[in-house]
Amino acid sequence: MGNTSRRKTEHIRLCLEEQVGGEGITTGFEKYRFRHNALPELNFDEISLTTTFLGAAVRTPLLISSMTGGSELAGQINDRLAEAAERRGWAMGVGSVRAAVERGELAPTFDVRRKAPSIPVIANLGAVQLSYGFGAAECQRAVDIAGADMLVLHLNSLQEVFQPEGNTAFGGLLARIEDVCRALPVPVGVKEVGWGIDGATAKRLREAGVAFVDVAGAGGTSWSQVEKFRSADPVRRAAAEAFADWGIPTAECIREVRAAVPDAALIGSGGLNTGVDAAKALALGADLAGFGRALLEPAVHSEERLDALLERVELELRTAMFGIGAGTVPALRNTPRLVRREV
Amino acid sequence: MGNTSRRKTEHIRLCLEEQVGGEGITTGFEKYRFRHNALPELNFDEISLTTTFLGAAVRTPLLISSMTGGSELAGQINDRLAEAAERRGWAMGVGSVRAAVERGELAPTFDVRRKAPSIPVIANLGAVQLSYGFGAAECQRAVDIAGADMLVLHLNSLQEVFQPEGNTAFGGLLARIEDVCRALPVPVGVKEVGWGIDGATAKRLREAGVAFVDVAGAGGTSWSQVEKFRSADPVRRAAAEAFADWGIPTAECIREVRAAVPDAALIGSGGLNTGVDAAKALALGADLAGFGRALLEPAVHSEERLDALLERVELELRTAMFGIGAGTVPALRNTPRLVRREV
Amino acid sequence: MGNTSRRKTEHIRLCLEEQVGGEGITTGFEKYRFRHNALPELNFDEISLTTTFLGAAVRTPLLISSMTGGSELAGQINDRLAEAAERRGWAMGVGSVRAAVERGELAPTFDVRRKAPSIPVIANLGAVQLSYGFGAAECQRAVDIAGADMLVLHLNSLQEVFQPEGNTAFGGLLARIEDVCRALPVPVGVKEVGWGIDGATAKRLREAGVAFVDVAGAGGTSWSQVEKFRSADPVRRAAAEAFADWGIPTAECIREVRAAVPDAALIGSGGLNTGVDAAKALALGADLAGFGRALLEPAVHSEERLDALLERVELELRTAMFGIGAGTVPALRNTPRLVRREV
Amino acid sequence: MGNTSRRKTEHIRLCLEEQVGGEGITTGFEKYRFRHNALPELNFDEISLTTTFLGAAVRTPLLISSMTGGSELAGQINDRLAEAAERRGWAMGVGSVRAAVERGELAPTFDVRRKAPSIPVIANLGAVQLSYGFGAAECQRAVDIAGADMLVLHLNSLQEVFQPEGNTAFGGLLARIEDVCRALPVPVGVKEVGWGIDGATAKRLREAGVAFVDVAGAGGTSWSQVEKFRSADPVRRAAAEAFADWGIPTAECIREVRAAVPDAALIGSGGLNTGVDAAKALALGADLAGFGRALLEPAVHSEERLDALLERVELELRTAMFGIGAGTVPALRNTPRLVRREV
Ligand SMILES: Cc1cc2nc3c(=O)[nH]c(=O)nc-3n(C[C@H](O)[C@H](O)[C@H](O)COP(=O)(O)O)c2cc1C
Ligand SMILES: Cc1cc2nc3c(=O)[nH]c(=O)nc-3n(C[C@H](O)[C@H](O)[C@H](O)COP(=O)(O)O)c2cc1C
Ligand SMILES: Cc1cc2nc3c(=O)[nH]c(=O)nc-3n(C[C@H](O)[C@H](O)[C@H](O)COP(=O)(O)O)c2cc1C
Ligand SMILES: Cc1cc2nc3c(=O)[nH]c(=O)nc-3n(C[C@H](O)[C@H](O)[C@H](O)COP(=O)(O)O)c2cc1C
Repeated sequence: MGNTSRRKTEHIRLCLEEQVGGEGITTGFEKYRFRHNALPELNFDEISLTTTFLGAAVRTPLLISSMTGGSELAGQINDRLAEAAERRGWAMGVGSVRAAVERGELAPTFDVRRKAPSIPVIANLGAVQLSYGFGAAECQRAVDIAGADMLVLHLNSLQEVFQPEGNTAFGGLLARIEDVCRALPVPVGVKEVGWGIDGATAKRLREAGVAFVDVAGAGGTSWSQVEKFRSADPVRRAAAEAFADWGIPTAECIREVRAAVPDAALIGSGGLNTGVDAAKALALGADLAGFGRALLEPAVHSEERLDALLERVELELRTAMFGIGAGTVPALRNTPRLVRREV
Repeated sequence: MGNTSRRKTEHIRLCLEEQVGGEGITTGFEKYRFRHNALPELNFDEISLTTTFLGAAVRTPLLISSMTGGSELAGQINDRLAEAAERRGWAMGVGSVRAAVERGELAPTFDVRRKAPSIPVIANLGAVQLSYGFGAAECQRAVDIAGADMLVLHLNSLQEVFQPEGNTAFGGLLARIEDVCRALPVPVGVKEVGWGIDGATAKRLREAGVAFVDVAGAGGTSWSQVEKFRSADPVRRAAAEAFADWGIPTAECIREVRAAVPDAALIGSGGLNTGVDAAKALALGADLAGFGRALLEPAVHSEERLDALLERVELELRTAMFGIGAGTVPALRNTPRLVRREV
Repeated sequence: MGNTSRRKTEHIRLCLEEQVGGEGITTGFEKYRFRHNALPELNFDEISLTTTFLGAAVRTPLLISSMTGGSELAGQINDRLAEAAERRGWAMGVGSVRAAVERGELAPTFDVRRKAPSIPVIANLGAVQLSYGFGAAECQRAVDIAGADMLVLHLNSLQEVFQPEGNTAFGGLLARIEDVCRALPVPVGVKEVGWGIDGATAKRLREAGVAFVDVAGAGGTSWSQVEKFRSADPVRRAAAEAFADWGIPTAECIREVRAAVPDAALIGSGGLNTGVDAAKALALGADLAGFGRALLEPAVHSEERLDALLERVELELRTAMFGIGAGTVPALRNTPRLVRREV
Repeated sequence: MGNTSRRKTEHIRLCLEEQVGGEGITTGFEKYRFRHNALPELNFDEISLTTTFLGAAVRTPLLISSMTGGSELAGQINDRLAEAAERRGWAMGVGSVRAAVERGELAPTFDVRRKAPSIPVIANLGAVQLSYGFGAAECQRAVDIAGADMLVLHLNSLQEVFQPEGNTAFGGLLARIEDVCRALPVPVGVKEVGWGIDGATAKRLREAGVAFVDVAGAGGTSWSQVEKFRSADPVRRAAAEAFADWGIPTAECIREVRAAVPDAALIGSGGLNTGVDAAKALALGADLAGFGRALLEPAVHSEERLDALLERVELELRTAMFGIGAGTVPALRNTPRLVRREV
């Protein structure tokens, strides 16, 4: 097993077994509540989840966030996620394809298109790799490996700090992202990994040609917490603790980015657990709502467990829509019934 | 025992034994406090609770909310509640009369008029039944069965979702409610069952001809929580959890509905436990204050226990009125001494 | 032992042994904080506590609130309190003198003047007694019995409700208070017993001729809680629970009353425990700061314990004054360094 | 061992073993949060911590707060702190040099210059000593003993109250401070010891000629708490409890003092534990961020432990700067990315 494979497997294991959530920080969704509409004037069975993302039709406004690939276990997880996504009509991202770009024999573990012919598939690379020799060609290769419709570059500055031998040369990255956006024939997006993207940063990215932004905000998985468990260096480990509450809450990111770049496609993710969270993400302005770590344990466990979870999220989403009288995704996205909770 | 009877009995049992209150949500009454008036300038013994509801005189501004009927146990509970209500001058609603409309032999379990000749009695049906074949005739039948002065239709959208084979066709319901209001000789009201009615919805209902609104707000009994215990389907059960904090707090509903429909009769209910809660409901604008689940255990236990509870609520209400120097229900409803608690 | 004596002794015992504080309510002092002045520019040893109350000089701005009398134990407590007050220059009130007005042989248990020749002494009667036969003559008699400089009438509406055979005829009381104020040669004040007096009520009282107001606000001893322990009636006992958070917080009362009646003498009391609380009461506008139940246990225990407590309160008060650079009581009362805590 | 030595050793022991933090008060840093910048556009390895303080270059914006000296243990601690500070480029203060001014043989325990040739060293005396015979000559002697670049006078009014035979003559101190500022050839600053300096006081001090202010705010070590453990007098000990929440939170002090004296050098200290705290102190306007008690246990334990702590703080500071995209100390001090947390 190579270094990267070992790291990926360790990430999965830690996310399954340890307390890797932030501390002293939440998604911010709990600051909002839906105001019940006692007389919804619609039939529950007619509620529709179909929507579009970057011009393509999708059966649900839901996404499986970029998580894995690059080892045997990871490949099995990706297969299972892809099959479920295809069955239920969720979009799906894969984890960073870098390992497969560098070592071709890992490519099959990222090939979710094979199992998911009809849904939007998103390839993934660390944006900072653009400072370490990657360019448009490697990006295109990542897209091809996953059979993807688009590429998302992730920004993970603090993870790189806490990771042994992390790649922390973030200088000049915006120009390199701009180059990739121009060169690639598919849409290119940018995401964080759990600390969130704010409005001003989204604007800079949009002006550089990015087609979509996935906020991947704080309140869910915290990568300083994950790397804390991996680090052998006691100073680094202790320092990671001070960042357990770092990041911009997901709800705040969504609201800001939607206001700052009204014309960009927007994914709301980071700490989502239920279809009510998803409904809030959409009502705050997201086009899709993404789920990461919440899917990991079911995906590792069994097809049945994973299916039950996706089904539950959809039922919660539909029920929330029924509860406020929104029969379609556009109606949900424009609802005046999401309000801030008073303190 | 038919299906409906079994469901009714199960509801009662769950409400007696399980944690069926919402979680992460409160009535909102705790956000208000009365400002003590050290010099009330009135005699405690002369405080009067008499008031009027829809033009009729009542001895207290208190109501036993719609709860049951349709089985032997339910009939006994209704008898006990009716006797106590008659003794103390509370108004009283019965649970949904649908079962008795469909199966005449159940009618006696709803006939509270027999035990309660003088108080206002309110018949009850699910509004959504109007989408499933019920019309003015069945509504009138429900009124007759209970010997009621008026009818209340309940809106329970989310309960129907979480209930096996729930009736979820809420499309076009407003027009059907309007038809019933026009056709029936008695006043027709609308209530929720624990998620609350907001100002805008009350306005729509009022314009459709509804005579009174019972907000039945959140913070007390939560029907997603009740149905969670009944559901055999694990996905549905898990999804119900996400709605444990759903609904509009009772205090917020009362304030909004009073402002939106100043001329409609208004019942404040949902999570009331004490006469101080009732005093707050009235001071926020309600004409009557309704108690549901708080009465269930005493009613099942004994006449004495039930009487003691009603007496306690009245004593608390009188004491609160004495504490702020309000000698009558109108004075309480106009008090400037109910203020929001600072945070 | 007569009924009244038994009640007095029971009150003392309950206040010593049971949880008789309010629940869900505080004095409001915790909402304020003093902003430290690092460079006070004064010598700690020169800080002066002397002040005046209703024109008379006092050695400290501190008061022992009206508590007891009317039984042997009560008489001993009064003696001990009086001796300590005299030694340290606190003002002192006695408990309701009604029992001694009615039964002359109890008079010595209220005669604190004997032990406290130089300090201000305040006699005490329930205002509501004016609805039950008491008039100016009985008031004068109460003053004489205590050897007092002034009289305070207490308003305790809710205590009377929860007390067996309470006197609850509060109608027309203001006019009767006005008569007493006019008739008596000494200043007459009004106090609550732990639910507080607000600005509007203070204004009504002031216009009726009251010389001083003691807010006796909420957050300390709650008399519904005390009477709950005494009541044999389960309904009354249960109802008392609903009033555990009743009343206006002491800090709020002081601020309001000071603004409403700028020219009246003002005692800030209710829930004070430390000299920092006292400093806040004075900075909010009180002329004297009163301590009730906090003194009871030390007074019952020993002269030493009581003295240590009074000394501690004074040291805390002086230290707070040093901490904000206020060398005199007037400077403290005008400090800009008391601010509301942000939430 | 003399009295002073014994006191110093006891202070160290109590700070190591007892709960000497304030209660019910915090630094206020938790009210602020940094807004993550997902695209920092800089290389982590190029982040620079160099800055200047009173015109002199320093390798980090970090300071070891005045703590000790005057006994053998204290001398060893100072040596260890000085060596670490020199290695890593932190500024360093010594504890009050008074003992060594009075007894020359103690001077070596304060001579940190010997171990720390290149960093800014700050001598320390109690300001109140100026009321007890100390003047410019003694101040100069303190500077010489420590081999210091500057002197800081500490204001510790409440500590003196709770300390046996404390020096509490704070009257006229400002003029005496002014004299020292004028007479000394080195810059003179003023600090508190854990209750904070507010804007108005800083202004008075600045106008008296003080070159720098160290707020030493509340939320960290509380000296009423420390002296509580030392006091043999039960009244004084009990009174100290009432001051456990006294003082102005460090974050509030920094913001105020920066606004009130924009041209003075400013040290933000009091309760700092991490480099994220330091980053907040700097972003709020401090020139240096000071650490006191957090360093004590590591300094007593071993060189390695102390070094690891300093290294951790620096790593946290750098990571926070990376997280918001600030590559230099001036950029951090001007960041718009420090915002108040909503409640
Ligand atoms: C096991 C695991 C692996 C991940 N790997 C990647 C990755 O390779 N690339 C990426 O952009 N994000 C990765 N993420 C981050 C997620 O896409 C997501 O942004 C983040 O976990 C926050 O969402 P959550 O709180 O729903 O988990 C990973 C997350 C998990 C839990
Ligand atoms: C056992 C039980 C049965 C109920 N059945 C009905 C019903 O048949 N029709 C109806 O409109 N509401 C029904 N409700 C709802 C109540 O009328 C009330 O709106 C709700 O419980 C909120 O009030 P509470 O918090 O005081 O219980 C029922 C409530 C309970 C506890
Ligand atoms: C044992 C006890 C007896 C009291 N008796 C009287 C009384 O006779 N008259 C009166 O005006 N207040 C009486 N009070 C009320 C106090 O004067 C005071 O207003 C109240 O206790 C609130 O202050 P505290 O929280 O400091 O105790 C009594 C209080 C206590 C604890
Ligand atoms: C053991 C100890 C001794 C101290 N001695 C002094 C002193 O002699 N002079 C002084 O100005 N401050 C002294 N201080 C106060 C510190 O300089 C600092 O202002 C205070 O502890 C608050 O910072 P902290 O919360 O980081 O400890 C001392 C602090 C400690 C913990």
